[in-house]
Amino acid sequence: MKVLVINSGSSSLKFELVDMTKEETLAKGICERIGINDSKLVYKNIVKDTKNEISEDMPNHKVAIDLVLKALQDSESGNIADVNEIDAIGHRVVHGGEYFKESALITDEALKKIEEVAELAPLHNPANIMGIKVMQELLPGKPNVAVFDTAFHQTMPSEAYMYALPYEDYTELKVRKYGFHGTSHKYVSERTAELIDNKNSKIIVCHLGNGASISAVKNGESIDTSMGLTPLQGLMMGTRCGDLDPAAVLYIMEKRGMDSKQMDARMNKQSGVLGIFGKSSDFRDLEDANALGDDRAYLAHHMFTYRVKSYIGAYAAALNGVDAIAFTGGVGENDSAVRRDICNGLKFLGVELNEEINEKRISGDVELSTAASKVRIFKIETAEELMIARDTYALAK
Amino acid sequence: MKVLVINSGSSSLKFELVDMTKEETLAKGICERIGINDSKLVYKNIVKDTKNEISEDMPNHKVAIDLVLKALQDSESGNIADVNEIDAIGHRVVHGGEYFKESALITDEALKKIEEVAELAPLHNPANIMGIKVMQELLPGKPNVAVFDTAFHQTMPSEAYMYALPYEDYTELKVRKYGFHGTSHKYVSERTAELIDNKNSKIIVCHLGNGASISAVKNGESIDTSMGLTPLQGLMMGTRCGDLDPAAVLYIMEKRGMDSKQMDARMNKQSGVLGIFGKSSDFRDLEDANALGDDRAYLAHHMFTYRVKSYIGAYAAALNGVDAIAFTGGVGENDSAVRRDICNGLKFLGVELNEEINEKRISGDVELSTAASKVRIFKIETAEELMIARDTYALAK
Repeated sequence: MKVLVINSGSSSLKFELVDMTKEETLAKGICERIGINDSKLVYKNIVKDTKNEISEDMPNHKVAIDLVLKALQDSESGNIADVNEIDAIGHRVVHGGEYFKESALITDEALKKIEEVAELAPLHNPANIMGIKVMQELLPGKPNVAVFDTAFHQTMPSEAYMYALPYEDYTELKVRKYGFHGTSHKYVSERTAELIDNKNSKIIVCHLGNGASISAVKNGESIDTSMGLTPLQGLMMGTRCGDLDPAAVLYIMEKRGMDSKQMDARMNKQSGVLGIFGKSSDFRDLEDANALGDDRAYLAHHMFTYRVKSYIGAYAAALNGVDAIAFTGGVGENDSAVRRDICNGLKFLGVELNEEINEKRISGDVELSTAASKVRIFKIETAEELMIARDTYALAK
Repeated sequence: MKVLVINSGSSSLKFELVDMTKEETLAKGICERIGINDSKLVYKNIVKDTKNEISEDMPNHKVAIDLVLKALQDSESGNIADVNEIDAIGHRVVHGGEYFKESALITDEALKKIEEVAELAPLHNPANIMGIKVMQELLPGKPNVAVFDTAFHQTMPSEAYMYALPYEDYTELKVRKYGFHGTSHKYVSERTAELIDNKNSKIIVCHLGNGASISAVKNGESIDTSMGLTPLQGLMMGTRCGDLDPAAVLYIMEKRGMDSKQMDARMNKQSGVLGIFGKSSDFRDLEDANALGDDRAYLAHHMFTYRVKSYIGAYAAALNGVDAIAFTGGVGENDSAVRRDICNGLKFLGVELNEEINEKRISGDVELSTAASKVRIFKIETAEELMIARDTYALAK
């Protein structure tokens, strides 16, 4: 059985074809600049280890997905002879609101609910819905499955997900903490539980990338996470500010004469590492500049690690202890200085990092703690597409 | 030497007369509803244990302070024969910005700086300034001292006080974390260090009242605190929301068609315990309703304690350990259920509450932990007025 995984953004579309018999990725790629200009499809045939770039006009997602399907069937560079080899399609959907506590087979009713919660994720859900509809049209009769970024965090207790706002902001506007990156937090926490051979464990997952979030997972269930109503809350990110005095939002708008839209863009796209460092939102650039003695790179690095460290402390309290901490995502998997500065502040928890192993670039899932460490530390390679494929396979079977 | 302590709000004015030879409070009281109607002065003569209420029109702070001075000199109920017995006046000033790292003798230059940072605390600093100016006019030649709510937290390192916003929001608008309740955090952390007989200690102070904040104090210096640019950030409070997804601010404004001012009032005056519980912002009402099985009282209580517990975890990480936790403020000193539910989630830190002592109402400063507890727990009676009097005395001498 083959599953096509679709991650549809407003102007891009990522895809991955997975053979579920061996959980093997056959092909993956991305359509970029959909609906803009100079659109491009990058197609990687993993089996043959080839890469093709196709520059072709993609005025909309339908044209883009059609190109992906053609590329998949290309007699030379493709991976399948016929689209009917695709047995099911798995879609990443950002927001599932309170409706979806797990992945769902797409029905009219499910699609209606995804449309209903779109106002909570106006930049993401409409693009996800577009991807689903185009797939229904191009591959009629094939099951489509939605895998939600929010679903894993639906187990949070109310004291963790409620904001202390007037109660009707929850009942009328559905304003609460939802959390995101759920597919990654689920995969990584399960993988960590497997590695420490303890399903009934207290695990803190640090998903650190351009977007960054952290979760507290108890006995396999998320009990708290740092992102909120939107993916803006919590940690400092590549371009997002994370936690802030809510009154500062109004203060800056007033002082700068900005409207809601401008302030939203300022907090989501011009803040975080980019805002403090000033030169780039990329952690590799940040660490390079930090090594060369750039003051603001130093500040951004230490603000970032200080906040992760503080959240680990907060979640150790939420869990009343911690068995393991897992680092994942582009930064979590590759930035040894970030991991070091976080762990060095956590000695009170019994955290002992093996600094030598931490510095090495080893692929795969690696334990980074010493044998004496009371809390085990791991670097885990996240696998969101595989998780989407797994859920799709399970529901489509 | 006698010091008059003045805490001037927009429509109220609290005062306390302290004899510094024995640090003894001679009189204290409050002027209420200044500039509104039905204004009233309550005067307590602590020495004679009498209380007088004077209903008299107070159109402005000058009239109010004049009444206070008259009441102090009243031959029957007063405490002094002549205003010249007042040697110095200490003023609580909410915001000192980055200018004031400690209390300051009022000079023209100091007053100019307090006026300059007033835009960061538009509700508080102007009232404080008014109190200073009236005192200068009514008691010319007497030294006035400003004691700032923010000063104690000026030792925070930049990774703790910077927000991950565009850097120019800091340089141009002075947007950063300042923290408040500094006088209380300073007094309580010093008192706790004294009780554990260790100046080089790691102390977490939980100032829990209608306003609530928490601080991490290392070797006598504040290294982080939960309030921010304004007193809105951090813990859930009587009517304030505390931490929130910054994007939720914009989302609610948009959905409810609210402007900045309305949203500010919503977050500061209609949220917190009042917002969730719905019936009152008072913790005594909340605990009563919780005991009777009110669902929303239960939720508000657990949201509140969960957040305090999380902050304690975060600050244990900031400090890389914790020697003592101190509870102060109206709720911290009196609400045993709040203290119990916070401490029960902190067993991973080695916190062991003596539940029996915790339940008892004992006045004064009380140790609440068992002998076996790795972290010592205290209830400390805060003494902001005494701290203001002490600083005033030291600077005016």
